[in-house]
Amino acid sequence: MVRGAESTRPFALDEAIAVLTRTPSTLDAMLRGLPDDWTFAHEGGETWSPYDVIGHLIHGERTDWLPRARIILEQGEARPFEKFDRFAQFAASEGRTLTSLLEEFEMLREQSLRDLSELCLTDADLDRRGRHPELGVVTLRQLLATWVAHDLDHVAQIARTLAHQYADEVGPWRAYLRIISGTQG
Amino acid sequence: MVRGAESTRPFALDEAIAVLTRTPSTLDAMLRGLPDDWTFAHEGGETWSPYDVIGHLIHGERTDWLPRARIILEQGEARPFEKFDRFAQFAASEGRTLTSLLEEFEMLREQSLRDLSELCLTDADLDRRGRHPELGVVTLRQLLATWVAHDLDHVAQIARTLAHQYADEVGPWRAYLRIISGTQG
Repeated sequence: MVRGAESTRPFALDEAIAVLTRTPSTLDAMLRGLPDDWTFAHEGGETWSPYDVIGHLIHGERTDWLPRARIILEQGEARPFEKFDRFAQFAASEGRTLTSLLEEFEMLREQSLRDLSELCLTDADLDRRGRHPELGVVTLRQLLATWVAHDLDHVAQIARTLAHQYADEVGPWRAYLRIISGTQG
Repeated sequence: MVRGAESTRPFALDEAIAVLTRTPSTLDAMLRGLPDDWTFAHEGGETWSPYDVIGHLIHGERTDWLPRARIILEQGEARPFEKFDRFAQFAASEGRTLTSLLEEFEMLREQSLRDLSELCLTDADLDRRGRHPELGVVTLRQLLATWVAHDLDHVAQIARTLAHQYADEVGPWRAYLRIISGTQG
């Protein structure tokens, strides 16, 4: 395949679904069965552990992506989205195992993608507008593209959090590892 | 589980192996069957695609991790490691499908971990020293910790490269997505 000069792509619903479909199995492969000391590890301060992130993704599935898509389609700009609670997972995940969270996320994502498919969205639908409580007017296309990027953001965050555990142990190699040195290289 | 104040961990061989074991299935879950337009996508300029990254990981399996561990154990600081060729994958992957690269990486990683296990490394072995051609004296423990962090660095890179494809399409949400905005937030 010849390398293209372009480095971004226009939104395509089938491609977005291809990425969204893969997130539960990606997270399962990364995290299921890892020692708790790793799945509860964080980057210091108030940063999140992989366990926290899975709870956050579950909350997003329940309250953010499909619910907001429906608000856009049914009520347009007239009704701003509910604010998303970035801390809901701390109470909701209480006492749960990571495995049970991974399985719940997988089930919810399957349901979300079934619901998305049943909306039979047209290009005209993707242009429809809603109102974000802080960002103002957004389109359904932007919401769905953000869903994709948000998944990937959290996959990268989990990888970074795990790598951070060996920030000291890598010794002089630290300079070559942008995931630890923090450079985007 | 009570959240600990510590955000890094001491190296433990069994934990390192737990992470290293999961990388092939993580990459397979993320990438197998994704449209070529995504697996060959990059972040502009000379940045790597997911396809390039898998080739790089294969080359690392063949020439970097276990071979360097053996040099440390057999020759210590006397013999510097070979320099690692960061561009070998461009020729080596020529004409291959991504699926075949994913399968080769999985097979090579299994073999690497079998070989690692057969070394029966002791704590004293982990302190043994070798010489990196640029970084100078390093320990076997640092090499193995770097192997773990290097895997995770490339998982994060692939997630970032995929997310970058929608850098324009996310619209005003860009501000919230550190994977696109580039902030480590």
